[in-house]
Amino acid sequence: MKTRTIRQNQAAVRGVRLTGNFTMKQVLVIRKDLKMGIGKMIVQSCHASIEASEESKKRDPRSWGVWREEGAKKVAVKVQSLEELLDIEKKCRNYHLPVALIVDRGLTQIPPNTPTALGIGPAAEIDVDKVTGRLKLL
Amino acid sequence: MKTRTIRQNQAAVRGVRLTGNFTMKQVLVIRKDLKMGIGKMIVQSCHASIEASEESKKRDPRSWGVWREEGAKKVAVKVQSLEELLDIEKKCRNYHLPVALIVDRGLTQIPPNTPTALGIGPAAEIDVDKVTGRLKLL
Repeated sequence: MKTRTIRQNQAAVRGVRLTGNFTMKQVLVIRKDLKMGIGKMIVQSCHASIEASEESKKRDPRSWGVWREEGAKKVAVKVQSLEELLDIEKKCRNYHLPVALIVDRGLTQIPPNTPTALGIGPAAEIDVDKVTGRLKLL
Repeated sequence: MKTRTIRQNQAAVRGVRLTGNFTMKQVLVIRKDLKMGIGKMIVQSCHASIEASEESKKRDPRSWGVWREEGAKKVAVKVQSLEELLDIEKKCRNYHLPVALIVDRGLTQIPPNTPTALGIGPAAEIDVDKVTGRLKLL
């Protein structure tokens, strides 16, 4: 059954390994309306990735382990405003998805306390897609 | 003494918190000679960030914790060839720095088994700089 999460179905985990399919993923959501260079965007994304990963691992170490065994799938998507970023964060909290909002201290390129990115998951792909399924790839 | 690592000097940890200076950092090294789009570069960097972070935490959880308390400093730099990437990896191993080489499975944009990025640290900034100090910011 597609809606089962990994931790509820050990057989599914074995299936994943055999087929090379992904059941878990992490999504990095980046603001494109800010004037960030590539290096800055990469650093903000890595902050989001690490912080969301730690949150996810704390909540459910077993699913986190499955994610890494599958190859730790990550997808980068974009939003065009602060409002859009915060709206996605809110939806993640409503769906109880592990999420990390990155607020830049503004040491370089942008003003202090600017929210720049979100990390979501790793979590079951089918759950993450409820929130991020319509966002455009970066 | 500036060359002391965090775990050898608890007082330095307190100093860091008060001053807001960084003593630890992680460096993401990205190949610019590959035809990767921004999203692909971000995902490769996040792979490097997570894998190097896990390696660093396994070796020295206390220093890893200091890094995160300081704000988890990350820097993105570029190289122009595979040879340069592998040379940096080798130097990291010679200096016993935690390092993760990311080899892409080539599902999108580039051929399978292409080394794309390196994650180095978190480790003491002064040690990381021995290897990455001359590399150009991305």
